[in-house]
Amino acid sequence: MTDQFISRESLAAADAADPLAAFRDQFDLPEDILYFDGNSLGPLPRATPARMEQAIRQEWGRGLIGSWNSHDWINLPTRVGDKIALCIGAAPGEVAAADSTSVNLFKLLAAALRLRPGRKTILTEDGNFPTDLYVAQGVRDLLDDGIELRQVPGDAIAASVDDDVAVVMVTHVNYQTGAMHDMATITQAAHDAGALMLWDLAHSAGAVPVALNLVDADLAVGCGYKFLNGGPGAPAFLYVAARLQNDITPPLSGWMGHEAPFEFDDVYRPALGITRNLCGTPPVLGLTALDSGLNLFLTADIMEIRRKSLALTDQFMTLVGNRCAGHGIVIATPRADTRRGSQVSLRHENAYPIMQALIARGVIGDFRAPNILRFGMAPLYLRHMDIWDAVEHLRDILENRAWDQPEFHTRAAVT
Amino acid sequence: MTDQFISRESLAAADAADPLAAFRDQFDLPEDILYFDGNSLGPLPRATPARMEQAIRQEWGRGLIGSWNSHDWINLPTRVGDKIALCIGAAPGEVAAADSTSVNLFKLLAAALRLRPGRKTILTEDGNFPTDLYVAQGVRDLLDDGIELRQVPGDAIAASVDDDVAVVMVTHVNYQTGAMHDMATITQAAHDAGALMLWDLAHSAGAVPVALNLVDADLAVGCGYKFLNGGPGAPAFLYVAARLQNDITPPLSGWMGHEAPFEFDDVYRPALGITRNLCGTPPVLGLTALDSGLNLFLTADIMEIRRKSLALTDQFMTLVGNRCAGHGIVIATPRADTRRGSQVSLRHENAYPIMQALIARGVIGDFRAPNILRFGMAPLYLRHMDIWDAVEHLRDILENRAWDQPEFHTRAAVT
Repeated sequence: MTDQFISRESLAAADAADPLAAFRDQFDLPEDILYFDGNSLGPLPRATPARMEQAIRQEWGRGLIGSWNSHDWINLPTRVGDKIALCIGAAPGEVAAADSTSVNLFKLLAAALRLRPGRKTILTEDGNFPTDLYVAQGVRDLLDDGIELRQVPGDAIAASVDDDVAVVMVTHVNYQTGAMHDMATITQAAHDAGALMLWDLAHSAGAVPVALNLVDADLAVGCGYKFLNGGPGAPAFLYVAARLQNDITPPLSGWMGHEAPFEFDDVYRPALGITRNLCGTPPVLGLTALDSGLNLFLTADIMEIRRKSLALTDQFMTLVGNRCAGHGIVIATPRADTRRGSQVSLRHENAYPIMQALIARGVIGDFRAPNILRFGMAPLYLRHMDIWDAVEHLRDILENRAWDQPEFHTRAAVT
Repeated sequence: MTDQFISRESLAAADAADPLAAFRDQFDLPEDILYFDGNSLGPLPRATPARMEQAIRQEWGRGLIGSWNSHDWINLPTRVGDKIALCIGAAPGEVAAADSTSVNLFKLLAAALRLRPGRKTILTEDGNFPTDLYVAQGVRDLLDDGIELRQVPGDAIAASVDDDVAVVMVTHVNYQTGAMHDMATITQAAHDAGALMLWDLAHSAGAVPVALNLVDADLAVGCGYKFLNGGPGAPAFLYVAARLQNDITPPLSGWMGHEAPFEFDDVYRPALGITRNLCGTPPVLGLTALDSGLNLFLTADIMEIRRKSLALTDQFMTLVGNRCAGHGIVIATPRADTRRGSQVSLRHENAYPIMQALIARGVIGDFRAPNILRFGMAPLYLRHMDIWDAVEHLRDILENRAWDQPEFHTRAAVT
């Protein structure tokens, strides 16, 4: 739908025909906002408060220690992992929900380097999400044996994999621009050079179709609190292809990754399968909220999600182009459907105060330094008409320089 | 109170005079059980469900992404850490709540080795909690530069610190026996030999007085879900003495440990202070439940907790000695007040089925392989009379071999 003549009415008609429309009622969204920040923190699923109250009052309060068995808390990481697997094209037993994305990156980067002894390069992309770069820098400095972190432009990754690369670490959808890589091509390039492929799915899982098994990906990590709606600081996840699982040597060898943790042996013996990548005691409350968020994806068709996501992002970019011209806005997100994830990013030298002015009107996106306005598009609860209303607010703010108020320039701790 | 003539009446009188008695009402304990497993999973504080509902429905549901600022989610790790600091004799700014105990052990062990370059030994205790040993083995194998993990008997630690020891890692209260180390003596021995001292406070925090600053401890970790009542799989904590904080090189260098995470720089620059030991996004729901549990300690006097804990453990051991003799029970916990934490452990060749028989009667302790029955004593909610009733059940089970039923021999996944 690259229609130059999008109207509020045409968008209302799209909403009326939307096969995903009913999902909006599954979220407890405030009435007075348009929420374009589900790529940073997904909203509260309507089922989650009752599920959490049950976990807190019944499972914890009544069941106490016995709930590790009676409510199968002990297997939450893999039970939740199996639901995530459905969202990312993995098989049961290939995903575990645990720790944070950063910690999981550390685990898999260190494990990947051990799987490719003699190779000294971690290859990644310029502009990758900072924690990916920071964790790789940390692994490099900790191991202190000549490992190099090499950053190249995104379109140069496939051609840059040489026989010194142990692991290619790329974020599927860029957090700033929303640009999306072709997983098959880059994974194939990594494998052709004998390297392992590690995907960061933070901005992909639940938002775009991901087919880890189909592209033969080796390793992946991702985030539970964005499009998966698992709650603030939800546990993250990690994926290890079944064919590699028993070759992994976990650097974070905690008791929950032991073959038999309740034998209380003195010597670490890694569990078979994905479980060896667990470390400490599972965060039951966080995993329960994540599990509740994932239930929505058991009935949502990811291809419908993708179709609507492409429509929403396309409509947004088209309307911005049509209605916000002349105010210095540059669209940072690729126009080609195959090249973008589920967000639209706009560049503007006053991105920060413009976003604050939008937020003050209830249009909730976010700012990313130095000059990006981000609008995440979560098809399960956004309406096509929301696109119209958001762009109208943006147009009005730009035309009237409504962003140029002192209060909109004050930087908050978290942007 | 090593009175040989403890009676149910004398224990009832002790309850009537108990200055901590009112705290029991602050917990939502099932009526029909006696809970001796607060050293494994603390029970639900009565204030926690409402606090969690507020965090879920209001902070997450209404505030959405804005709650990182408006509810100061971003500083939860240090705000919660400051409350934990009060329980362990640390200063504000010396503790952060984050990740799991296992992950925090990895961070601090790796950091300690970097602070003592050239020294190659991690010194620890035989029978330390397995995850401590496993994580140390993982650090050793990952760094692959000649590091040795040396285990010695607990009473030999102080004399075993030599000039090859980089870090002494000891658990203050042993998870199996409840034996407690003298922190001052061992810390001094470590320092005398130029080593760093890392304490695991999993079975200490909230249960016994801990004075990290007073003994000049360098590093510590601990658990949120045991005596601190933070909920199943609650975030753990770590402590770094203020004098060392800016010398730490974090091995898990995630974005939340960066000096300015929202500048989204490409290069990791560790934050000043304790914050550099953070890694991924804070687990807001888990931290909120932990924060609620910690509030109980803001008004409980740790010296009163210790006095009652010593009374409860002493009464338990005395009654077991008086009333359960002749059935093969051996008390594994030291009798000297200065040498035990807040649990009583009994050895018996049939420990597993005996504990299952107790649990079937509502006396909830736990089993630790190969032959330990554990009874955690949490003075905020246990009554002296509970000791009598628990020992009577134990006596009856032993005298009538009530444990010798097939259903009590079936091992559960989690023991």
